[in-house]
Amino acid sequence: MTDSQPPRTPSAPPPGTFEILAADPSSSARAGRLWTAHGPIDTPVFMPVGTQGTVKALAPWELEEMDCRVILGNTYHLNLRPGMEVMEEMGGLHAFSDWHRAILTDSGGYQVFSLTDLREMTPDGVWFRSHLDGSRLFMGPRESMRIQRILASDIAMAFDECPPCPCTEEYAAQAVQRTIDWAAACSREPRAPGQLRFAIVQGGVYPALRARCAEALLALPGYEGYAIGGVSVGEPDALILPGVEMTVAHLPPDRPRYLMGVGQFHQMAESVARGVDMFDCVMPTRLARHGMAFTRAGRINLKNAANRTASAPVEEGCTCPACRRFSRAYVRHLLMAREILGIRILALHNIHRYLETMREMRQSILDGTFPAFRARIAAAYGPPAS
Amino acid sequence: MTDSQPPRTPSAPPPGTFEILAADPSSSARAGRLWTAHGPIDTPVFMPVGTQGTVKALAPWELEEMDCRVILGNTYHLNLRPGMEVMEEMGGLHAFSDWHRAILTDSGGYQVFSLTDLREMTPDGVWFRSHLDGSRLFMGPRESMRIQRILASDIAMAFDECPPCPCTEEYAAQAVQRTIDWAAACSREPRAPGQLRFAIVQGGVYPALRARCAEALLALPGYEGYAIGGVSVGEPDALILPGVEMTVAHLPPDRPRYLMGVGQFHQMAESVARGVDMFDCVMPTRLARHGMAFTRAGRINLKNAANRTASAPVEEGCTCPACRRFSRAYVRHLLMAREILGIRILALHNIHRYLETMREMRQSILDGTFPAFRARIAAAYGPPAS
Repeated sequence: MTDSQPPRTPSAPPPGTFEILAADPSSSARAGRLWTAHGPIDTPVFMPVGTQGTVKALAPWELEEMDCRVILGNTYHLNLRPGMEVMEEMGGLHAFSDWHRAILTDSGGYQVFSLTDLREMTPDGVWFRSHLDGSRLFMGPRESMRIQRILASDIAMAFDECPPCPCTEEYAAQAVQRTIDWAAACSREPRAPGQLRFAIVQGGVYPALRARCAEALLALPGYEGYAIGGVSVGEPDALILPGVEMTVAHLPPDRPRYLMGVGQFHQMAESVARGVDMFDCVMPTRLARHGMAFTRAGRINLKNAANRTASAPVEEGCTCPACRRFSRAYVRHLLMAREILGIRILALHNIHRYLETMREMRQSILDGTFPAFRARIAAAYGPPAS
Repeated sequence: MTDSQPPRTPSAPPPGTFEILAADPSSSARAGRLWTAHGPIDTPVFMPVGTQGTVKALAPWELEEMDCRVILGNTYHLNLRPGMEVMEEMGGLHAFSDWHRAILTDSGGYQVFSLTDLREMTPDGVWFRSHLDGSRLFMGPRESMRIQRILASDIAMAFDECPPCPCTEEYAAQAVQRTIDWAAACSREPRAPGQLRFAIVQGGVYPALRARCAEALLALPGYEGYAIGGVSVGEPDALILPGVEMTVAHLPPDRPRYLMGVGQFHQMAESVARGVDMFDCVMPTRLARHGMAFTRAGRINLKNAANRTASAPVEEGCTCPACRRFSRAYVRHLLMAREILGIRILALHNIHRYLETMREMRQSILDGTFPAFRARIAAAYGPPAS
């Protein structure tokens, strides 16, 4: 099968190496490069979500052509289907899905707590029922690490408890303690060759809990990066950036920082300004399925009657394969007729827009023009000034 | 927008030119080339069906890469959605869907009779209710020709009445008379520039009716080709080839012959042996959505548990983009997880298999090896010998 890796010199730094290449003097934004066993990831980076081993509606060659360097895979979903017996026999997720660039896998914790009926919490993990067939399953730090080892992802996430928002301080404190204990248990598990490991800081909206969680995780061995969890679980927009700030304050400057599940452009730009390096979000592919496109000028709904005979592409000047060929009128027709090509076109365009925007953001940090970039994103995508 | 036409020399013959380049001495099979306003079509040819202005799940660049020269569009569906007001403003179906090779449009008659509640037959056409919103509409030869003129297809089909099978000889005779009258009416309508027109021979399973229909249609001016209708409307397999034989017997040898809706490989090979040049069928894309793949060795169901950990591609030795990268195990997983990429992969593979098989069939006629080809297809796909 074809192997299409990004360029990797024989002298590539070892996985986990994180180079900071430039920093914005007016904020905490930085441009970096994280080395993995499957090539370098230039940061700030957006990671498209491939829940079930495929970024919805796209083929891997399309992601390669857009120079996507890293995608996500989902531990909870892949463990249920195709299951780890299949995955082990197929040699891991890279070989299985024929994707030879970096993969980050989440821990499964988020889905266990959000998708399933909880049966029982134990110090070692959670008994729950599969959302697919109701079968009774167990997942804890050991199981999550084992699954991610079989998936052989480049970056594995520690198994955490992610409480919903709002939650009481008492509940958040319990979740923080479990997250710390489980991160400690994860750190004792073996890894796949070259696999990096990130710990997840929880603590809800409570600064003291975030601080305590971060400090305890930093004391653990074997983590090459840190994630900010639990700020995209029902929060109003106004609580996201404070959550980022109160967490980043306790993270080491020389390690990559990953803000989980946050993916609106203005949120990403403002989070980068606060020191975040990595993002993931289902929005570009999920909204494609609802007929929404992201453009430089903001979000548009292709199903609008105004596009009935619009001969312009989805986004004027866009170089994605869809905008080079198709009119808005045709895309609208495909969406109204529920044709797969309509979803494909918008998924392709949206992921292209996301990757381009992050490349522009990174370049602006390298060029010293990040403040202007940040202002442009706020004007196009930010909430109205109040 | 990009324009990707097949090679066309400045001295290309005028649309409608049909060159017969070789004939099989053991049968009525022939290899030909039909020239259209959008390039040549090498026959025998399979035409993928793009009902709503898109071959389901595929992008036009994928069809171009497979050197597909002609696709179908559907008059009934495109008239309802996006509608002819949009189509007229967008400059026809080629520009609208950014497909710059040949397009054949059906007449809409088949859908009017099979998909809708009939309200009233008149000498000028049919009142019916839209299957989308129940609105009351009229279609007859004039309307069908007008729609196909606006679509600006390369080959327009005459508006016919296609009776279901079984039907009585009396009903079939009425349908034949209407088909003749309507073909005469169609021939009086103006065409799009360079547009060819094919008449459709009906007559059910009744040889005398087929003969009468063919003879009447041949007497009409303005038809460059002839189609065999009503042999894929519920027939048992055993009635299809007799229907082909009793029709081809009355068609001129120097004009292209199109067998509508028949698309199993052994049916196509046997029909080519009886003098047919053109085919269309929804099977390769429809069965892709049900997890079925066509291979040289026959049809396979990718969802079978046997493919759970199969590292072989869908078809060993296949050069389609999907078989170059993906294992059966991965395709099976995508299908079980209802991911769009699974449907894309099988649609791509199946259309590739169809186009390749027709190219091999054509080459065998040019090489004088059609009998061996025909035997191989019968062994892999034909009904078991009885």
